Amino acid sequence: MDPASSFLPLGDFTARAPSARTLTCSTSAPTGLLNFVLAESALELVPKEIRKLPAVVSDSKRREADASAILLDRSFHHSAMARLKDSEKRGRPDLVHSALLSATGTPLYLQGRVKVFVHTYCDLVVDIAPKTRVPKSYLRFRGLMEQVLLGRGDKLVTARPSKLTDLVRKAVKPDITVGLSVQGRKMELEDLAGRLMSADNACLIVGGFPRGHFSAETLSVVDELVRIHEMPLEAHVVTSRLLYEFEKAVTAVNH
Amino acid sequence: MDPASSFLPLGDFTARAPSARTLTCSTSAPTGLLNFVLAESALELVPKEIRKLPAVVSDSKRREADASAILLDRSFHHSAMARLKDSEKRGRPDLVHSALLSATGTPLYLQGRVKVFVHTYCDLVVDIAPKTRVPKSYLRFRGLMEQVLLGRGDKLVTARPSKLTDLVRKAVKPDITVGLSVQGRKMELEDLAGRLMSADNACLIVGGFPRGHFSAETLSVVDELVRIHEMPLEAHVVTSRLLYEFEKAVTAVNH
Repeated sequence: MDPASSFLPLGDFTARAPSARTLTCSTSAPTGLLNFVLAESALELVPKEIRKLPAVVSDSKRREADASAILLDRSFHHSAMARLKDSEKRGRPDLVHSALLSATGTPLYLQGRVKVFVHTYCDLVVDIAPKTRVPKSYLRFRGLMEQVLLGRGDKLVTARPSKLTDLVRKAVKPDITVGLSVQGRKMELEDLAGRLMSADNACLIVGGFPRGHFSAETLSVVDELVRIHEMPLEAHVVTSRLLYEFEKAVTAVNH
Repeated sequence: MDPASSFLPLGDFTARAPSARTLTCSTSAPTGLLNFVLAESALELVPKEIRKLPAVVSDSKRREADASAILLDRSFHHSAMARLKDSEKRGRPDLVHSALLSATGTPLYLQGRVKVFVHTYCDLVVDIAPKTRVPKSYLRFRGLMEQVLLGRGDKLVTARPSKLTDLVRKAVKPDITVGLSVQGRKMELEDLAGRLMSADNACLIVGGFPRGHFSAETLSVVDELVRIHEMPLEAHVVTSRLLYEFEKAVTAVNH
């Protein structure tokens, strides 16, 4: 077992106030709540078809863990990943981690006003209970996500098979869904934040992958595809900016 | 040697355009440039006094590296760190990494308009050349920082002994230095960004440690100590917000 993950039983995903789960996925949620979905995220266990390739075997041996129980990571498995379909979109748990830190470090998240979901490339949804702290140490995060993707999550963080369309249409049921993409229509971030804020139950979708664009399925649940900058921005930059402007919009209404 | 760091020779700290180092630390820098200093950062090699303690020996053995060549990290060395002075402010390379990602993922940094320095608890200054990309993978970042702190940096990222006062007064020589702290005077982020933007050579200081406050020495170089939120915010959140507002202020002037 990797010593890094041995620190972290799931308890590291500690809720500050698990009882205060005020954010529900229903259309009756009060104005100013936001569902944040990191979509098609590059977070998965090493897939079967490459588990016997040298890069994976070597990493598995080093970590003293079965290849089926470790996260696919381009830093370690680059040469093996060439065989995978959509290889360029996969194997970047570091990207997912930094985007989650950006979302979960915000005051609105800590107040329970942002609900976070991680939808993965393989159609799993990791559901993070409101206010739950994500491990800041990457090695702890990795250990936790490996447990969760193996189905060993706890009440605060769980994984279940679900397509993004089902997550959005059957669970979140938003009245507006906005996807962020360089292929979208340019919109000022302040305007977008105001629009999300004025909805009863808004859903924001950010790509959790390093390259490429949303799949046709993801696009099918998006009401508006929006571009917020001339330059392509990393997921954690987009996330922190959007949640900051959303917070400003919420604060402006409440004062 | 840790296999994780073996991928990463210093080349991972690749400059997008090393020749375009337009940002210099002089008072003649054009308006709209910002020196960003992560101060008293919790980034250091394991100090001598705890290298023989069990938690460090165990980690050193696991990584097959000498204890003097690995980063102090509370995730691994918690029990040994109790003996250290100012223990609560030290051993959080993950925090330094996330703050650096927030700074270096911004368009202004990528355009060479933000210069980044990491001043450490032990009075080293890590100087990151403009536009240089910081490894997004924490394990690569760790490998790089270990090399840099051992004096094996390259042209793009180097470490040198320097007090924060010397960095600010003798190298950066700003016309305004603002420190961000919960002990500061409350100021709207937009106003602060506008003020920094209108200076010829502004310096922003953010704490690179998890708990506690700036030392008296850090406070001695700060012209204004500012608080930007009612809640204490993590370094990466403060960084991303400030640089975003700074970018907006710069853009507003340039259009």
